[in-house]
Amino acid sequence: MELWLSEEHTPGYRVQWRVRKVIYCTKSRFQDIAIVEMQDFGRALVLDGIVQTTIADEFYYHEMIAHVPLCSHPKPLSVLVIGGGDGGAVREVLKHNLVKRVVLVEIDEAVVSACREYLPELSAGLDDPRVSLVITDGQGYLEGCINEFDVILVDSPDPIGPAAELFAGDFYASIFTALKDDGLFAAQTESPLFNREIFSRVVASVKCLFPIVRPYLTVVPTYTSGYWSFTIGSKKYDPLQPLRPVDWSGAKFYRSAVHRAAFELPLAVGNLVPGWLGTPPGVAKETTAGRK
Amino acid sequence: MELWLSEEHTPGYRVQWRVRKVIYCTKSRFQDIAIVEMQDFGRALVLDGIVQTTIADEFYYHEMIAHVPLCSHPKPLSVLVIGGGDGGAVREVLKHNLVKRVVLVEIDEAVVSACREYLPELSAGLDDPRVSLVITDGQGYLEGCINEFDVILVDSPDPIGPAAELFAGDFYASIFTALKDDGLFAAQTESPLFNREIFSRVVASVKCLFPIVRPYLTVVPTYTSGYWSFTIGSKKYDPLQPLRPVDWSGAKFYRSAVHRAAFELPLAVGNLVPGWLGTPPGVAKETTAGRK
Repeated sequence: MELWLSEEHTPGYRVQWRVRKVIYCTKSRFQDIAIVEMQDFGRALVLDGIVQTTIADEFYYHEMIAHVPLCSHPKPLSVLVIGGGDGGAVREVLKHNLVKRVVLVEIDEAVVSACREYLPELSAGLDDPRVSLVITDGQGYLEGCINEFDVILVDSPDPIGPAAELFAGDFYASIFTALKDDGLFAAQTESPLFNREIFSRVVASVKCLFPIVRPYLTVVPTYTSGYWSFTIGSKKYDPLQPLRPVDWSGAKFYRSAVHRAAFELPLAVGNLVPGWLGTPPGVAKETTAGRK
Repeated sequence: MELWLSEEHTPGYRVQWRVRKVIYCTKSRFQDIAIVEMQDFGRALVLDGIVQTTIADEFYYHEMIAHVPLCSHPKPLSVLVIGGGDGGAVREVLKHNLVKRVVLVEIDEAVVSACREYLPELSAGLDDPRVSLVITDGQGYLEGCINEFDVILVDSPDPIGPAAELFAGDFYASIFTALKDDGLFAAQTESPLFNREIFSRVVASVKCLFPIVRPYLTVVPTYTSGYWSFTIGSKKYDPLQPLRPVDWSGAKFYRSAVHRAAFELPLAVGNLVPGWLGTPPGVAKETTAGRK
């Protein structure tokens, strides 16, 4: 029997992975959860039929969501991760020796359990004494937080199902309040090609709240078309230049030079950012004044 | 009837595009050629069942294969394009006012005819008086060329079928001879994830011949997993810094900042480049000396 996991990105574009074995599947209060063994990408976490992360390329995503914001803050002592119940982002956060405390807020305990059992490469960090796990919704958790965190990471699935509220304007206002006066946050903000409107809308929402807003790009091969965006909102520090080089072994993707390069948006993406050309101080203005 | 074009990237990973209409198809001496109308990506050129370029994202590829090398040469008067019978790379080359002469060498006249008829957005530049079209194989054409071109672009399909010889060591030796004493070339060198061995081997081959070798990366959403590599071999000029800003309208992707950023390889890709860390002068050495 040939099993293929099929993901429809649009009604006219889909990706299919051959699955050697369905290792685990369950239905939680929030979603369908599966762990599968893919032929070419190793084990994968699948939520409501959408591949969230695979062993083969999870580090592309987790290193870029964690190290870019963490290396942009001079003293990230207290870090909140919203979503990311697989533990991959937490694992990367823990590589920063300055970090004293990590709170992981995940809405679905069943995701954490499945990843603890079947994806230890991602979830191992959850047992670190610096980590507290809180099972609740991100927005609800934030309502009790004022001036508490140095860095917040929003490691959400696509904005459908339980994660939809993590892309709303109210949510970013709560993030702002939960951050210290010099805090910053990074959120995954979807494909800058397939989800142009979401990307553009989130950047605009964050711009209404934070004085410094910087979208950045990377590649996550198993995500739609590979091209992926994150957005940083910061109260004080501009993330364009990392403040520290990486000082841990085991990095597979992130380098200081990659950090800097990630903020250089191509025209097709930059043009989705409200007020892009001219205003952002770190983005060199280009001459596009017409062919002579 | 639902038509889906299916592309197998590995035996366990494939991508499918819904096709509204097969506009044209023929079998040339070299390959099956089709022009299709995709639901989400506009018209596309398909050779032997593999999508070569689509209207929706062709500029990601064509701007990056052309402008990075062209902007790295102070006086690119004479340019050779090998492959790329669709005309997309030539179109971008012609945006550089310094260019006086472009030779397009394409092995398969039927590709050029199909693109002239059905993909005028790409092929229109072929009628420019600066362009000469030569229908022959790239290696054969190069045998008659000594010290002739400032810049050569190798815009080849995957290294199977008629394009296989465009990835061999002999081919790069012929490129070297065909370039002037300060010439440089850029070749598409496949996915740095799905075609690691090809990428690594080509970079090594070019390093045996050229004093300056610089792989660079971009995203081409309709190519395997989106992540795509090019490699520049240069006799004199280091391409890390563009020599000119873009001075034409109509660019959709390339900016000088994107040019610079494209050379910053993540660890997972840099580690495929022989002798990468430490040796290349433009690549900052990173501290990865173990977690404290």
